[in-house]
Amino acid sequence: MDYFNIKQPWNDDIMLLPLTNSNRNNLHNRESINKGKNQEDDDFDIDDDEEIPLYNKTNNEMENFEVNGDNDFELEHAKYDDFSTIDWLRDIMSEKTGKKKQINRNSLNQYIKSIIDASQSWIIVLFIGILAGIVAAFVAISAAWLSDIKTGYCPSNWYLNRRFCCLKVEDKVNHSCSRWVNWSQVFFNNPDHGFFNWIVYVFFAALFAAASSYLVVHVAPYSAMSGVAEIKTILGGFIIKQFLGAKTLIVKCISLPLALGSGLILGKEGSMVHIACCIGNILTKYFSRYKKNEARKREIYSAACAAGISVAFGAPIGGVLFSLEEMSSYFPVKTMWRSFFCSFVAVFVLQFMNPFRGKTVLFQATYDRDWHFFEVISFLIIGVFGGIFGSLFIRLNIRAQAYRRSTFLKYVRIAEATFMAFITSVISYFVIYMRMDESELLEVLFKECEEGDHYGLCQRSKRIVILLLITMIGKAFFTILTYGVSVPGGVFIPSMTIGACFGRVLGIILQHIQQAYPSFPLFNSCHPDKMCITSGMYALLGAMATLGGVTRMTISIVVIMFELTGTLNYIVPCMISLMTAKFVGDAFGKGGIDHMIIRLRNYPYLDQKEEYFIGKKAKDIMTLKDDLITIKSTDATIGYLKRILNENEYQGYPIIDKEEYVTGYITRSDLKTGLERNLLVNDNAKCRFGDLKNVSSSSNSLGSREHSNEVRNVDFRPFFDATPISVDENVTAEFIIDLFKKLGSRCIIVVRHDKLRGIITKKDILKNIEELDSEYFDSIIGIHRRNQETNGDKSYTLRDALRILKIFKK
Amino acid sequence: MDYFNIKQPWNDDIMLLPLTNSNRNNLHNRESINKGKNQEDDDFDIDDDEEIPLYNKTNNEMENFEVNGDNDFELEHAKYDDFSTIDWLRDIMSEKTGKKKQINRNSLNQYIKSIIDASQSWIIVLFIGILAGIVAAFVAISAAWLSDIKTGYCPSNWYLNRRFCCLKVEDKVNHSCSRWVNWSQVFFNNPDHGFFNWIVYVFFAALFAAASSYLVVHVAPYSAMSGVAEIKTILGGFIIKQFLGAKTLIVKCISLPLALGSGLILGKEGSMVHIACCIGNILTKYFSRYKKNEARKREIYSAACAAGISVAFGAPIGGVLFSLEEMSSYFPVKTMWRSFFCSFVAVFVLQFMNPFRGKTVLFQATYDRDWHFFEVISFLIIGVFGGIFGSLFIRLNIRAQAYRRSTFLKYVRIAEATFMAFITSVISYFVIYMRMDESELLEVLFKECEEGDHYGLCQRSKRIVILLLITMIGKAFFTILTYGVSVPGGVFIPSMTIGACFGRVLGIILQHIQQAYPSFPLFNSCHPDKMCITSGMYALLGAMATLGGVTRMTISIVVIMFELTGTLNYIVPCMISLMTAKFVGDAFGKGGIDHMIIRLRNYPYLDQKEEYFIGKKAKDIMTLKDDLITIKSTDATIGYLKRILNENEYQGYPIIDKEEYVTGYITRSDLKTGLERNLLVNDNAKCRFGDLKNVSSSSNSLGSREHSNEVRNVDFRPFFDATPISVDENVTAEFIIDLFKKLGSRCIIVVRHDKLRGIITKKDILKNIEELDSEYFDSIIGIHRRNQETNGDKSYTLRDALRILKIFKK
Repeated sequence: MDYFNIKQPWNDDIMLLPLTNSNRNNLHNRESINKGKNQEDDDFDIDDDEEIPLYNKTNNEMENFEVNGDNDFELEHAKYDDFSTIDWLRDIMSEKTGKKKQINRNSLNQYIKSIIDASQSWIIVLFIGILAGIVAAFVAISAAWLSDIKTGYCPSNWYLNRRFCCLKVEDKVNHSCSRWVNWSQVFFNNPDHGFFNWIVYVFFAALFAAASSYLVVHVAPYSAMSGVAEIKTILGGFIIKQFLGAKTLIVKCISLPLALGSGLILGKEGSMVHIACCIGNILTKYFSRYKKNEARKREIYSAACAAGISVAFGAPIGGVLFSLEEMSSYFPVKTMWRSFFCSFVAVFVLQFMNPFRGKTVLFQATYDRDWHFFEVISFLIIGVFGGIFGSLFIRLNIRAQAYRRSTFLKYVRIAEATFMAFITSVISYFVIYMRMDESELLEVLFKECEEGDHYGLCQRSKRIVILLLITMIGKAFFTILTYGVSVPGGVFIPSMTIGACFGRVLGIILQHIQQAYPSFPLFNSCHPDKMCITSGMYALLGAMATLGGVTRMTISIVVIMFELTGTLNYIVPCMISLMTAKFVGDAFGKGGIDHMIIRLRNYPYLDQKEEYFIGKKAKDIMTLKDDLITIKSTDATIGYLKRILNENEYQGYPIIDKEEYVTGYITRSDLKTGLERNLLVNDNAKCRFGDLKNVSSSSNSLGSREHSNEVRNVDFRPFFDATPISVDENVTAEFIIDLFKKLGSRCIIVVRHDKLRGIITKKDILKNIEELDSEYFDSIIGIHRRNQETNGDKSYTLRDALRILKIFKK
Repeated sequence: MDYFNIKQPWNDDIMLLPLTNSNRNNLHNRESINKGKNQEDDDFDIDDDEEIPLYNKTNNEMENFEVNGDNDFELEHAKYDDFSTIDWLRDIMSEKTGKKKQINRNSLNQYIKSIIDASQSWIIVLFIGILAGIVAAFVAISAAWLSDIKTGYCPSNWYLNRRFCCLKVEDKVNHSCSRWVNWSQVFFNNPDHGFFNWIVYVFFAALFAAASSYLVVHVAPYSAMSGVAEIKTILGGFIIKQFLGAKTLIVKCISLPLALGSGLILGKEGSMVHIACCIGNILTKYFSRYKKNEARKREIYSAACAAGISVAFGAPIGGVLFSLEEMSSYFPVKTMWRSFFCSFVAVFVLQFMNPFRGKTVLFQATYDRDWHFFEVISFLIIGVFGGIFGSLFIRLNIRAQAYRRSTFLKYVRIAEATFMAFITSVISYFVIYMRMDESELLEVLFKECEEGDHYGLCQRSKRIVILLLITMIGKAFFTILTYGVSVPGGVFIPSMTIGACFGRVLGIILQHIQQAYPSFPLFNSCHPDKMCITSGMYALLGAMATLGGVTRMTISIVVIMFELTGTLNYIVPCMISLMTAKFVGDAFGKGGIDHMIIRLRNYPYLDQKEEYFIGKKAKDIMTLKDDLITIKSTDATIGYLKRILNENEYQGYPIIDKEEYVTGYITRSDLKTGLERNLLVNDNAKCRFGDLKNVSSSSNSLGSREHSNEVRNVDFRPFFDATPISVDENVTAEFIIDLFKKLGSRCIIVVRHDKLRGIITKKDILKNIEELDSEYFDSIIGIHRRNQETNGDKSYTLRDALRILKIFKK
C-alpha cells in the first residue's frame, strides 16, 4: 500500500503511545517479522495476487458507514496478508451471520438461492475428484513414458511406454520384448552396445532432472518437494499465498513426471496431495461461499488431501483417514462426508482412465495363506527396523536439508538436482531393482512366488539377497540426499521400497531356514506341503513399517494396507509392525518427517494431536500491554490510525476505552479496509470505536455531524470485533492452547477485570512450545548446545532410554 | 446427604441474598429440575453408588486446608451428581496439572510410574475388546439356541442349536434335518402335529419375552431398548449413574438373548454397543487415571462403541467410523487409535470363539458381477424407499413411544412385552421369512442364486414376491410397535431386513422384466449369458438404504458394507442409495431415530454435527444475575454456605467480590466437599474465596487465626474455579454454542467489564435450540399446535417441499 507511505503532517496531540524504535521490534504480533527470516530467500518474491482496490468513494457513498441506528453491525470476511494465521472463529461466524440474513428473507427464491449456495461444496469436491483423477492418470502415464524413454522407445507407437508397447508380447520371465528397441539398436543397430545405452540413460536422467529443477527454481519455487509440510501448516490455519496457486499446479504437474522419469529416488504420493489441494484452491475462487472464507477453504483442502492419497494409493478410505489423522486440524463430520465423496470420485475417474491397463491402482497384493504365531518375532523385527530407519532417515535428511539451506548449495539448485540425477542413474543403471520404476518394484516385491518369478526374486540364491540389500542401502542413501532438492516429489514410496526390500530379505532368509530345518520346534505350525513364510507379505509389512517410521502415521497406513490387500487376515501383523515402528521411532524423537520440516522452516503449526504442557500462566507468556499499540476508542482520529498503520507492521490492535476496559480488537487488514473506505475524510475526523451501547447512546450527538462539515465522525464499527476472546491473566497456558486449538482464534486478549493486560498470539504459544524440545531439534540439525555436556551424543543414552518408556503415553 | 437437612439455627445476618420461594424455581441451574420431569418414573429409583464419606476430621487434619503460602491450588477431579452435565475442560485440565506434579519429580521411578499410568488406556481397551468379543459370542450362541428351542431340540446334544445340531447333515434345499426333533415328535411321536408345534412355539415366545421383560422392569430398567440414545447423551457429557453399571450389564446380557429368542422383531447391534460401554465403564473403576475423570471415561466409551459395532457387524473399521460419525462428541486422534485397537481385538476374539462355525462374522456377501449404468434408476428407487421408510418409521415409532409413556401402558410393561411376543409369534410362525432368525434371513437375502437356492428365494414365482412383501410389511409393523417395549434390543437389523426384502423384490421383478424383454434398449449393456441383475446386491443396498433412513448415518454404513463385501465395486451404488435415502429422509425431518429418542426423553444433548442458528445474544439467553444465588467472596461464612446448599438445588454458584467482579465459580458438589471437610468449623467462620492475589495479600491477617479459636477462617480455594470461562454479554449465541461444543464447559459466566450479569448453562442453549424445531417435533409425537392452521398436515406441503430443497445444505 504505497498510499500509506506518503508522509503526512502528523497531528501529534492525538498520539497515545510513543512509537520508539526500541519497542518496535518486540511487539505483540511478530508474524510480520517472520517474513524475513523464516522463508527461503528467493522463494518469496511474490506479489499480492489480490490487490485491494482503493475505493474513491464520494461523500454520498460514505454515508453507508455512518451510524444508522441499526445495531446489527457484522464483521466482513477477514482479509489476510501473506504468512499470517487465520481467524477460524471469525470466518466461520461471519458465514453464520450471512445465513441469518438469508433466513430472514423467507421466500422460495431465497431458498433456491441458498441451496445453490450450499451445494457449492459438493460441486467443488466433485470437480476436485474428477480433476485429481485425471491429473493422476496424466502423471502416471507421462512419468512411465519418461522413465522408459531413457532406455529406448517403441517404434510402432512412439508415445507408448514399455509396458504398453510390450503388452501381451512380453516374455514374463526374463522380461525381453522385441517391440521395444533400445538406443544402441537405433543408432548402431546393435542392441548390446551397453556403454552407449548407459550414456544415453544417464544423459536423459540428468536432462529431465535439470528441466524439472529449472521449472521449479525459476517458475514456481513452491512446487518443490512434496509440499505436505506446507499443506499441514496451511490446514492448521496459515496463509501462504500462491502455494496453492495455478502456477504451482501447472509447474508441479509438468515437473513431477520429469523428476520421476529422471530416476531420482522420489515418490509422487505427497505431491499428489499438493496437486489435489491446488486444484481445490483454484476451484474455490469460482464459488462465492468459499472465495473469501479461509476457514471454509480448509474444509475443501481436507477433502482434496483425501483425494490425493486416494489416487496415489488407490485407497479411498485410507485417504480420508490420512486427511483426518495426519493433515487436518479441523475435521468436522461434514468434511468427512465430502472427503469420502471426493476420494471415491477421484479413484473412479482414475480407474476409468485406467492408466495401468487392467491393473487396479498402483499395486494390489493378494495372499491366501495364514500367518503363524511364531512369525510375531519377525513382525517385531520389521517394526524395530522401521522405527530405527525412520528416525535415522529423519535425522539425516533434516540435517542435509539444514545444510543445504545454510551453504552455497542454495545458489546452485539446478546443478545440484542435475548432479543428483546423474550420480543416481550412473549407479542404479547396474542394479536392476534400483533401475526399475519404484512402484513396479514394490509390486514385484509384494508378489508371491506362486504368481510367477518376477525379475528373479524367487530364485534361491545369495545373489538376490545381496542385490536387494544393495538396493535398500542405495535407495536409502540417495533418498536422504534427494529429498530436499528443488524438484517435486515425496518420500512415501522411496521409504516403502526400502522397507519392502528389508522385509523381503527377511522373508527369504526365514523361508530358507524353515526349509532347511523343517523339524525345528518353532516351525511346528507349518504345513509341510505349503510355503510357510509368505515373503511377499513380509515385504508389505516392511513397507508399512518404514512408512510408519518416517511419517509416524498408524491408522491410515493400516487402512491403506487393508484396502490394498482386501483382507483382514494380515491386520494383526500389520498392527504389530506399525505400533512397534511408531514406538521405536518415537523413542528416538517425536514427530514424522513433515513435522520436522515444519520445525526446520519455522512454520506456525500447532499440532492438534499433541498435548503440550508448558506450566505457565497467561501473564507469563503474554506480550505486555506496554509493548502494544492500543487504540483509545473515544480519542482515535483518522490521522492517528493512518499513522499507526504506517509506522509499524503489527497484525492487530486492541481497542480500549477511557477506563482501559477492552472494547474490541481490530486487525491490521480491517483497519486498512476501514481507512480505504474513508479516504477523503479529514485526518482530524474522530473514529467511533465505542461498543454498541456507547454508540447508540452517543448517536444523538452524532446527529449534529451534518452541521459541522470540517470534523466528521467516522464509524469504524463494521470493521472491528467488539467481542474478542479474552481471558483472565491467571488462566493456565494449557487452557490458552486449548482455546487456540479448538476455537482457532488468532489472538487472545489477556485482561484483569476486563482491563487490558496483554495479548497472546499463536506465535507466543509456539515459541513456548518450541522451547520444550529445542534441545532435541538442535541435535538433529547439528547445532551444538551451549551447556557443557562433554560428549554430546553419548549423554543422550539415559534420556533416550527414558524416552522409550515415556512413549507409551501417546 | 442427610447431613445438610439437619435444621440449624441460621445466622441470619450473614444472608446476602434473600431466598424466597418465588425465585427458587426459575434459578440458573435447572438441571436438578429435570430430575422429576424428564425421566420415566420407575426407572430412576436408584441410590448413589458412590457415597461421599463424611470426614470426621480433627482440627489438626484441617490444617491442610488453611492458607499455606503455596499459590498453586489445584481443583480436584470434579464429582458429579446424577443427571448433571460434566465439565470436560476441568476434567481434562485437572489431569494436566496432575501430570505437572509428576514431571516435577524427575526420577526414573516416577517415569516408570507415569508409563504404567499412561498405558492404562491401552490395557482397558484391550480388555474391552476381549470381553466384548466373548459376550458377543455368548449372546449369539444363546440367542440362536433360545430361538430354535421354540421349534424343537437336539436329542443328541440338547445344548446345540439347530444349525450346529444339523451341521453337515442338513439338506441344503428344503432345510430338513433328521437330528433335530420338533416338539410334537417329542410328545406325540408325530412330527406333523402342526397345531401343537404352533402352541409350543407361541408359548415359548411369550415365556422368553416375559422373562426378559421381568428382568428389565424389576432388576435393571436401564437395560431396556438399545441404549444408543443414552450412550450418545453420555458421550456428549451427561451423567446417568448406573446406566453403564454392572447390574445393567448382567441383566442386558441375559435378557437380550431372551428377547431375541422370543422372536420379537429386534436386533442386537445397538445393545452390543451398550454392553461394550458397560464393560468399559466397569473396567475404568479399576484404573486410577479414569476412575474419577468423567471426561477421560468418555474416551473409553468411544472405543467401546467402536468395539460394539465391530463385533455386531464384523466390521472393525466401520465400528470406528460409527463411533466417530454417530456417537462421539469428542474424538481426538488418540481415541481413534485406541478405538481401532479395541475394535480389532474384539473382532479377533469373536473370530477365535467362532460362534458361527466357519462363517465369518454375521454375514458375508460376495458378488463378482459388475453393475450396469441403467441400474442407477433402481439405486435411486431403493434410496427413496429407504428415506421414506426411515422417516415414516421414526415418526410412527416415536409416536408409539410417546403414547406408551403417557397412558396406562407404562404400568403393564411385562404384560405388554409378553403380548407383543405372543402376537408376533402367532403370526410369524406361518411366514417362513418372518420366523427365521433375522440375521439368517439377511444372509439368505444377500446371497446370489448361483450359491444355491435358499428357502425358495430363487424360485420364479409370484409367491416368493408376495411372501417377501408380507414379511416386509409385517416386520415394519411389529418393529414400530416393539421398539420401545421394556426389553433390550435395537432397530438396526430389523430395519435392514425390511430394506433387504424390498431390495430383493425389486431385484426379482427387474430380473424378470429383463429376462422377458432382453432386447429392450435399457438392457443393452447386459451380457446375454449372464444374470444381468444381481438381486442379492439389491437386497444389500435396500438394507443399507433403510438403515441410512432410520439412523441417518452414511459413511459408517458405506464402510461397513465395504467390509462385508470386501469389494469396492459396489461403493457407487451404495453411495447413490445412501445419499438419496439421507436426502429424502432429511426432507421429511431431521435426525435419526436415536436423535428423536433423545428429544423425546429431553436429554441434554448438543449435536456436534449440527450448526445451529439462534440469532440472539448472550444477554438474551442467559439467566439474569438477579435470579442467581451468588457468593460474596469476602463475606461468606460456613453457615451461609450450608444454608444455600440446603435451601436450593442449583448446580453452581458464581463468586463475586465487593465490586461485583467475578472471582470464581463453585459447583454444588465442590461446595459440598468443601463443607464436609470443614464439618467441625463454627458456622460463623469466614470462608476465603478471594482470588489468589487477594488471598496472598491477606495471608498476613490470616496468620492471627491461631490466636482466636472461636472464629476460624476456612480456605475454600482448593474447591472452586478461580478462572471460569466468561464472555461479554454482547457475544452471539452461536459463539456460546461453539464454546459449549468445543470446550465442553458446563456453564459460562456472562459479564460486562468483568462484573457479573448472568450465567448460561448447556440447558439454556438446548432450550433455545429446541424451540427451533419444536413445531416439527410436536407434529411427530402428535401434539396439535396452538396456532390456527386449518388442516394440520396438509399445510406442511409447501414447507416440506422447501425442506427437500434445504437439505442440500447438509
